[in-house]
This record gives sequence, structure tokens and C-alpha cells, in this order.
Amino acid sequence: MPLGKRTDCGDAKYAGVEVSFACDVVEALEGTLQCGFDFLAVPLVHPRFRRPRLEPGVTVPPFTRSDLLLTSSQWSSQIVGKVSPWIEPDAPSAPLRRDSEAALRQELEWAAHLSLQACILPLPHTLALANYARILHQVMLGLSSMALWIRIPLAAPAAERSASRAAEPQEGAHAPADPWEWWYRVRCLCGQNAKLGVLLDLPLTLPPQQAIDRWRGEPVRAVALPTAAFVANRRGYPTLPRAHQELLIDFWWQGVQVILTGQAHHAPPAHAETGGPSASGSGGSAVAVAINGGAGPGVAAAGGESDHPLRAYCEYLSYIFRKAPLPPEQELLELSYRDYLQAPLQPLQDNLESQTYETFEKDSTKYSQYQAAVHAALLDRPLASGAAEGDEATVLMVVGAGRGPLVRASLAAADAAGRRLRVYAVEKNANAVVTLQNLVESEGWGDRVTVAPADMRSWAAPELADILVSELLGSFGDNELSPECLDGAQRFLKPGGVSIPAAYTSFLQPVTSSKLWTDVKAYNDREHLETPYVVKLHRFTTLAPTQPVFTFEHPNPAAGTAAGPDNTRETPLRFERPGAPAAVCHGFAGYFDAQLYGDVRLSTHPPSHTPAMFSWFPIFFPLRRPLHLPAGAPVQAHIWRCCSNHKVWYEWAVVSPTPTPIHNPNGRSYYVGL
Amino acid sequence: MPLGKRTDCGDAKYAGVEVSFACDVVEALEGTLQCGFDFLAVPLVHPRFRRPRLEPGVTVPPFTRSDLLLTSSQWSSQIVGKVSPWIEPDAPSAPLRRDSEAALRQELEWAAHLSLQACILPLPHTLALANYARILHQVMLGLSSMALWIRIPLAAPAAERSASRAAEPQEGAHAPADPWEWWYRVRCLCGQNAKLGVLLDLPLTLPPQQAIDRWRGEPVRAVALPTAAFVANRRGYPTLPRAHQELLIDFWWQGVQVILTGQAHHAPPAHAETGGPSASGSGGSAVAVAINGGAGPGVAAAGGESDHPLRAYCEYLSYIFRKAPLPPEQELLELSYRDYLQAPLQPLQDNLESQTYETFEKDSTKYSQYQAAVHAALLDRPLASGAAEGDEATVLMVVGAGRGPLVRASLAAADAAGRRLRVYAVEKNANAVVTLQNLVESEGWGDRVTVAPADMRSWAAPELADILVSELLGSFGDNELSPECLDGAQRFLKPGGVSIPAAYTSFLQPVTSSKLWTDVKAYNDREHLETPYVVKLHRFTTLAPTQPVFTFEHPNPAAGTAAGPDNTRETPLRFERPGAPAAVCHGFAGYFDAQLYGDVRLSTHPPSHTPAMFSWFPIFFPLRRPLHLPAGAPVQAHIWRCCSNHKVWYEWAVVSPTPTPIHNPNGRSYYVGL
Repeated sequence: MPLGKRTDCGDAKYAGVEVSFACDVVEALEGTLQCGFDFLAVPLVHPRFRRPRLEPGVTVPPFTRSDLLLTSSQWSSQIVGKVSPWIEPDAPSAPLRRDSEAALRQELEWAAHLSLQACILPLPHTLALANYARILHQVMLGLSSMALWIRIPLAAPAAERSASRAAEPQEGAHAPADPWEWWYRVRCLCGQNAKLGVLLDLPLTLPPQQAIDRWRGEPVRAVALPTAAFVANRRGYPTLPRAHQELLIDFWWQGVQVILTGQAHHAPPAHAETGGPSASGSGGSAVAVAINGGAGPGVAAAGGESDHPLRAYCEYLSYIFRKAPLPPEQELLELSYRDYLQAPLQPLQDNLESQTYETFEKDSTKYSQYQAAVHAALLDRPLASGAAEGDEATVLMVVGAGRGPLVRASLAAADAAGRRLRVYAVEKNANAVVTLQNLVESEGWGDRVTVAPADMRSWAAPELADILVSELLGSFGDNELSPECLDGAQRFLKPGGVSIPAAYTSFLQPVTSSKLWTDVKAYNDREHLETPYVVKLHRFTTLAPTQPVFTFEHPNPAAGTAAGPDNTRETPLRFERPGAPAAVCHGFAGYFDAQLYGDVRLSTHPPSHTPAMFSWFPIFFPLRRPLHLPAGAPVQAHIWRCCSNHKVWYEWAVVSPTPTPIHNPNGRSYYVGL
Repeated sequence: MPLGKRTDCGDAKYAGVEVSFACDVVEALEGTLQCGFDFLAVPLVHPRFRRPRLEPGVTVPPFTRSDLLLTSSQWSSQIVGKVSPWIEPDAPSAPLRRDSEAALRQELEWAAHLSLQACILPLPHTLALANYARILHQVMLGLSSMALWIRIPLAAPAAERSASRAAEPQEGAHAPADPWEWWYRVRCLCGQNAKLGVLLDLPLTLPPQQAIDRWRGEPVRAVALPTAAFVANRRGYPTLPRAHQELLIDFWWQGVQVILTGQAHHAPPAHAETGGPSASGSGGSAVAVAINGGAGPGVAAAGGESDHPLRAYCEYLSYIFRKAPLPPEQELLELSYRDYLQAPLQPLQDNLESQTYETFEKDSTKYSQYQAAVHAALLDRPLASGAAEGDEATVLMVVGAGRGPLVRASLAAADAAGRRLRVYAVEKNANAVVTLQNLVESEGWGDRVTVAPADMRSWAAPELADILVSELLGSFGDNELSPECLDGAQRFLKPGGVSIPAAYTSFLQPVTSSKLWTDVKAYNDREHLETPYVVKLHRFTTLAPTQPVFTFEHPNPAAGTAAGPDNTRETPLRFERPGAPAAVCHGFAGYFDAQLYGDVRLSTHPPSHTPAMFSWFPIFFPLRRPLHLPAGAPVQAHIWRCCSNHKVWYEWAVVSPTPTPIHNPNGRSYYVGL
């Protein structure tokens, strides 16, 4: 039974419970489901079972219980397998290494045989994990759908663990105490295989926020929440400290499932009577759990209130899951766009479809900003000397008028300002022109609006404009060629005339986003790794504050000169990361901030994002390979806007800490056609 | 006229001279060729020429001299172009950046128009060289054959150079003083483009040997040797200090050409009279050179002894070129194998050809080692009690007898030891069996040798052997499946019997080898980057001493047990590099050392290489991407020998300083069939 009905958390609404092998898996599953959880994380093989050596004539017992205990559908939807924790493929002892390898392969093959959705892998014992990684890498290449979740602690494990490895000085001496590095190394050695995810073990005391945040961009599939992290409230019910609540909600928002681990420590009044032994658990190992194990009060006692010792935990989790704030309505509409890669529009080469216009026109914030900008520009215009207000019409040209939203906003602004306006609606898309022509009739704009079916770069304007209004900005500001279009349209702007927008600047910041990089990589070619994407970033971490990239101003003072405008740009970028932990960079997220007129702005730049505006998702520039950033190390990168006669494109590279190839040279993989 | 006739130095026998733009290129070329050099490095454009802005109606002068001055064949074979040194595409000043980019493109296009073989690029001014790299990267993608040689100093340049860049603290502060890092960064940013090479500027005082050695594996195309590095001998002739001589010879051996730079500083008696102004040159910039410039005594004065001021330098270079030691004769035979990648043999799957046997049989050292080993083994065998010497025949089986060289060596050893021998020659290649059968007749071996046409793994031996002799070793020892074959043959070895070889160990060490990596990369697929190659390493640098990898012993004590032999292996490797400068690792070079019997060995392991043995080249395990090694940083790697029913393969990975993917998982790209 899911924790709640909300739709914004994906599979995170399904929670699980980790149990020991000793339990009767049939009863445990039944009890756990009745209690309100959705799945069981259960050892594939008894953790103390050592495989006997095969010898001729000796009958070997089955290495684990029968698959006939559950139906295939139960195995595949309600059971997550756990690989034996004693397995240590990089142990100093050769026999233990050999046994570990054999057991690891056997258990993973068994799990695949059962069609489990996922298998939990034990924590690597040290940074010396190459052999472990090799086996996983080999096995994953043969898996069809099962995922592997490697167990990584969110905080560095207790010191005794690494002390027991003193026999390996060469690794131990250099081994960072940071478990994230274990994950990074396993993932690299396994060739960034997308089947490998993380089960994050939550500690009782949470590490600093930065050490948590960097996991947002990693493929965390589940978090293991120990019952010991709960505290009893006044009535004896288990509740979570605020920090744990917030962490959990944040992971749920990212679609990460929760697996409850450990024994029931809290006996709320209703349960205390029947909780028996499990309610007074020893509070020891987080792995050993007793849920109606072989003995003790069974789940079958149900009928009305069940006595399941974890029911209070499940109810509490369900409570905070349901009470967690919902995202704004607009965000709910965009759920399906989360982390969905879209090639940037090419409005100059392609004509937009009617439904695309319709989507954009729904962004009322954007058009009210435009209306405010036109209004302010009109009020700032001096009236012709001696003329009465409204006497002399201002010439306003909407270049790229689409289906008319800027025409409407401009007329509304003129009405509000009490100024007369003569509007030209210039539009190259013949289909959108039909809409405009119909609007002129239906809205009675006939005396004020002239529709010009033309490309603004070649249109022969009948008169010069006082104000040029356009909405040509892409997710990265200039990436839909607003500079080139407006330089072309500037011919018919009066000297001293106004362009709305007046200027725009793009911004970039390095991000961790395993999901996006993996999706780009899945195309298995260089082209896709050298293409920027429009994407609603969701499972990602920013690694440093944004830096400004390219700025364009309109009217462009160089557009009239002999040399002509130069819309190429190059920007060295330096992102400081003082105090930040080590992390992996998958690419850069881009935004823009545009000045429409005066202090009226449109911004997708997070520090100044225009509230409730949704027309633009960020842009994502991938790197061909994930890049390791040592703790605190700044990122130096370089990005260019290049122009030739027929196209405009970006090239980008990281130069430090590790230089990458320059991506997309000569626009070989991605460009915008002129 | 080449420096000498030797064949072992490739194009290094052609030397060049760097001249200034001011010279008359026709006369300078003629004079230089007469003087004994082979080509001229000449600026493409006058270094002080600044392009005028194009404006309508203004006639622009040609930006450089006409291509009609020389024939196409002269341009393409006797001229190397030099890009203007003022070009600084990463200058802090935007106009200088823009002018630099335009000029750099113009000059490279001009050079390509002239079909020059190569163009020399000026030293990047700092580590902030991203824009420079972008332009080179873009241009190289369009070049058909012209190479670019970027000028890099062998030693860190004078301090004032970097001081002038104080305006860029972010780069300057972290910029290593090591010019190799500039090269590394340019190369990475340019996507490891194979057209980009290095012109190494030799300093007057050479850096430590390690800083020189790491360039051996880099694509150094030429070294610039300043005349100021010469010293006058007693008779006034220019000679080089010993360190410079050795450096030069070493580069020549690697096929690197020399370009002489700077003015004539030394006036030997014969030339002093006519040397005039050029013999008393200012000794200033290495770039400004006067070889019969516009004025002064011309080359045409020739007829008998020319008065060319650089003649004495050329003669000296030719002298040390010719006197440099020649490699051993065997090495001369193998010139065409240098850095030539060969897929390892698969003698188990494929039958060798007669000519392959013939090549191997020429290695007399190898077979005299085998003869010595058999001899020692025979002498160590106790005679049957009471039997006279020679009475009881020793049973010796050559498994994999090929065309019989080991049969011959064994019989010779028995004759020398005065022991009776009964030899079985087991061979699976039906074609080689023909040779063996004929040899039995022609050599009169009929009473001593039995030919057994069979695979040793399945042969039904008529009796048990005292001694098994085999030559199944590959370049990496076990890589031609010697362990699996000998485990199979061990069935017909008597208890206490002897295997020759008795044991073998493989070795690895990290190397720089741009040439090999580039050749592997040129296949443009993952398979080739996950395959080891047999290759006569020539242009490479070792980055650390070798470490032992896998050891096998025969007879294998486990071959008789129920568990059977386990020929899988895994070895963590740690290569220490104390005090070593930063370098790039392209992969690992592998060798083996085998104990035939007692202290008789066969080794390709450099510290103990069997003298004059040439049957095995090293093996090269590439990395999918070149790996930066910071100064002094150790390399940690891991290699596995994996076995399944039908194949054996290696997997390998670097785990530190930067983890790589594990190469060749499941033998997907390379394996040896059983």
C-alpha cells in the first residue's frame, strides 16, 4: 500500500522493509504488506552459509530456499534481494577472494533467475575494490533488466571498519574517508553502467548539507532508514528528528524509495501490549531485524488492528509523506518533463506548430512583463511638442509575432498608457500569419495592426519603428539566434529607438546529473554528447554558483558600422568551490536573464527567476565523460559562441582540474541554422 | 643533402634551418641546400605585419610574398612554415585576440594552400590557451595532410615571460612552471588530434634526464637547436657539449629532425674571412637569423668551398650523426617492426604458417638455451641403479614440436650429455607434421624420434614422459595459453617428471607512447582500445620500474587434484614514481621471464633480457584514454587473467590517480580461444 496518493514523487511512494534471512519469507512478506509497506529487502542466501566444495558423490544441499515459496509476480514486484554481506572479493586472503567471487556470481545469477527488480550489494570494504567492480561489471553486461543497488553510507563509517584493513597500507594510507569516493571509483571501473545505482545508508547523525546535496545528482535508488534514527514522541510513537524528515522528503521528491531497517525500538501504547520480544529489541546491528520471525506472535493475529511491530513507523512515514508540501500547480503539470531531454528549438529553420504557440501563450507572467515593458517605454517617450496626448501614434513592430500574444500585450499597454499605437506584426511562419489575420478581424484591430508576412531579416518595412518587440530568446538567451534576427531587424528601427528586450545575459554552472548524462550517453555516439539540451532539471546538484557567460544588447551599436556586428563570443569561466566535497561533474546548466525595458526583466536565472514564469526550462551542456572534482577544487571552463555564414554554434571545454576535448568543434554535432 | 646514409633514424637524417622573413626565400633556400641542409623553416608572413581592416574602395596589399617564388614541389618538400609569433589568441585584450584568431586562420590556410608538410606554431603564452586550442582544433579537422608542430620549450622559459601575464591571476597562480603541461593541455583540448606534434626548443642548459625522457613517448617531430648551444673547439670549429650530443643522437634514433636556429656564432679559420657580419652576430633572439639576408655576401659566391656561415655547423651535425653508434644487426632487420602493432598469435586456434616457423627457428639463442636446459635436466637424472650410462633411455616429449627445432636441440643435448633419449614429437598442425616426418627420414632420427600428430590436450600417449619440453610462451608469458596446454599434457608426465619451462612470470610497467595509442585510436572503435598488441616498442618512455604480474609453475601441483588447476589470476599493481615529473600514461608494456630448468632462463624482461634473443617483442596493453599522472604520483592498476570453458582473456584498469573503466570485461573485445 503506497505511503500516499501524491503523483510528484514517482516510485518513492513505495516503501520497503529490510528483514533477516531467518524470517519465514512468506509470512514476513504478508505481514509487511498488511502493515502498509510495499516490498521486502531480503537476503538471497543465509548470511552464514558457506558453500561446500563440490566433490564427486557428495550430495550438496540447496544453497538457498526454493523459488516456489512465492509466485514469480511476488518475487519480481515485492522482493528486493540482498547479497551476503560477508562477500569480500578484494580480501587479502586468496581463498576468501575466490569464495567471494563464486558466491557473488551465484547470488546474482539466482536473483536474475527470480526476475527481481533489484539486488542490494554490500558496502565495499575499502577503496581497494577493483575485483568487486570487475565482477559487477561482468555480471551487469549480461543482465537484462535487474538493477544493482550498491550500499554506500551517507557519512563515513566508524573508524574500526577501516582499522581492520591495516593489512593494506597502500590503499589505506591514501583512502579518503569519504564514502562517496568508493561509489565514484566503483562506477568508473564499471564503465558508468546505468544498471548500477546506490542504496544510501542514512546515519543517526546527518553530515553537513553539502555532503548530502551532492547525492541529488547521483543515481540513488533507495535510502536505508534505521529505526534507531526515530525518537519517541510524548505518546511513545516513533517520529523523526526534523533534519531526517527534511532529508527524507527531499529524497522522496527525487523519487527515491525508503527501506526501513532495524528492529522496532518504540512501543506506542496500542502496540506495546502485543509487541512482545520485537518491541524490546536489542537495538544492535541495523541488519538483523525480526519481523514475526520463525517464532513469536504471527501476523495472522490480524483482524482489526494488526500487532505488527513496525506499523507505527509505517504510519508515521505515510504521515510525513502525505503532509510534505506539494509543488506548485505549474510544476505538477510539468512532471513528465522532469529530466526529459529536448533538442533546442530551431524557430528560424523550422516553423513552430500551433500547439507549441498555444503552450507558450499560456505563460501569462511572461506577457504581463512584456506589457509592463511596453507600457514603461511608451510613458518614457516624449510627446511631440504641442501635440495633445495620444495625438501622434508610436510605431511599434512585433518581429516574430507568432499567433499574436505580443500584439495583444502591446495594445493593452498602449490603452493603459493612453497612447496611440500603430503596430506591425511581422511573422515568417505562413501558418501563424493566418491566425494573425483572423485576429485582426475578430478583435477589431483593423485600424491599429498591420500583418506583414515576412522574415524580419529581409522585410521591406514601409516606415521606421519607434519600438521593436520580440520574443526570440531561448533557454540560453541567444541560442535561438535572437542577436542575428534583431541585428537584421534593426534596419527599420529609428535612431534612438527602443528594443524590447534591451539586453540579455546567459549564465552557466557545473552540475552533477547522472540521469541526464546516462540518457545522453545511451545514444552511444559522439553527436549527442556534443549537443546542448533543453531540460527541466530535476535530479541534479549544482556544484558552484552561476557565472555570467554571453551578453547581447539591442539596438546593437555595431550593426550599422562597416565592420558589422560581431556576435561571436568567448568566455573563460572559473567556478570556485571553497569547502565543497569531492563530486562528479556531468556538464553545465545554463539560464538567462533578460532586461526587457528599464527594470522590467525576464529571468530563468535561479537567483532572480521571474516568479511563476514557465516558458523556459534550463539548458544542459553535457561533457563527453564525467569529470572528477577533488574537494574544494575550482572548475575552469571555456565556452565559445561561433558564427559562420549559415550557422551559429557553441563549443565548450573544461580546462581544469582535467582538460577535456573541446566539444562540438566547427559545430560538427550541433548548430543552429541561420 | 641528408646528414648521413644510415637507415635507422628515419627522416631524422634531414635537417633544417630556421630563417627570418627578411631573407630572400629563393636565395636562402638555395644557399641552405648547398650548405648541406634539407629544408628551411620560414615565417609565412612578416612578423611585424598587421592586417589592415578591410574597407570598401581601399586596395589591400598582399599579406605575404607570392607562392610563385618557389615551385609547388619546393614548397611541399623544402619549406616548413612558421606562424607569426605575435599571435596570441588568449590575450587579455579583445582586439588582439580577434586579430590573432584572424591571422592564425589566414596563415594556416595559406600554408595548406602551399601544401606545406608542416607548420610551426608559436609557443602558447600561458596555460590559458583554450582559445588557441579551439582554433587549432577547428583548423585541424579541415586539414588533409599538413602537420602542425607546436613550439614547446624543453625547459621552463625565463621568468619574465610568465611575469608579463600577471593580469591573469586565476591561470597564473595555478600555472605549473612545467611547459610539458602546456603541451598536455593543448593536446587534450584538441581531442588528441594526431596532426598535432611538438617542436621542442632545446635550451643551452639541459634539464634533468627524467624531464627529457618523458618526451620520448610524445609526438616530437623536430627539435630546435640554437647555434648558441655550440662551443668552439681548439681550432675554432663549433662543437656541441657532450650532453647536447647525446640528446641529439637520442632524438635522431627516434626519427626526430633537427632545425638549427640562431646566427652563426663561431668562425672557423676557413670561414672567418668571408663570414662577415653574420659571424659576429649579436647572439640575441633565437628567431632572428641572418643567412645571406637581403644584403651581404651572397651564396652565389660558391664554386668550390661555399662561404655559408652555417656550413661548419652542418658539417659537425653530419659528423656526429654519422659517428653515432649503429644498433645491432638484429635490430636493423627489425626496423620495419618498430612501433608496428600486431595482434598476438593464437597458435591454439590457428595453425602457424611455414614462414612463421622459419622466422622463429632463426633465433639460435633461444634454442641453445633450450639445449642447455635439456642437457642440465638429463645430467640431473639419476641413472638406474647398476645400469651403465646410456643404458636406459629417457623419455622426452616435445609438446608443440612445430618443424622440429626443439627435437633437434634435445637430441643434441642428449648427445652432449651421453644419455639415451626416446623422443616423441607431438604436434597438432598437420602441415608441420609433414616437416617432422621428413626430418625423421632425412636426419636419420628413425630410431629415436616418434612423430605424434595430435593435440597434446587429448593425445593418448603410449608411455609416460620423464621430460616435457615446450615453447608455448607468448610475449606476456601465459598469453598463448601455455598454462592450459601444459596442464593438459601433464597427464603423460611421470610423477617427479620435469617440465621445460619450469616456471614463468609476466611483468608490466606504465608507458608513454603517443604513437601506439594514436594508431590504436585510429581504428575508431572500442574493441581495438581493449586489445593487447605485440609490438617492438620504440618511441616510448617507461614511467616506472616493472612489477611482476602472473606466475605459473609446471608441473602444476593442482592439475591432478579434484578441484583441478586454477589458471585465473588477479594482481593489484602499484608503480611508484618518486621524483618523477608529470607525464601521460597511454598503457602498459608487458614482458616475461621464464625459468627453463635450473638457472637456464629465457627473458624479455628488460632488467634480465636474454642477450641476442629476438623471438618476442613486448606486449602493449592500451588504455581507452590517455591518463594524466601528476608529478610523483604513483600509478595503481589491476589486471586479471580470466578463464571460461572456451576462452582465456585479460581485463585491466587503472584505479589511481584516476579510475578508468575496466577494459575488456568478459573478453568482449579480445580473448584467446581454447
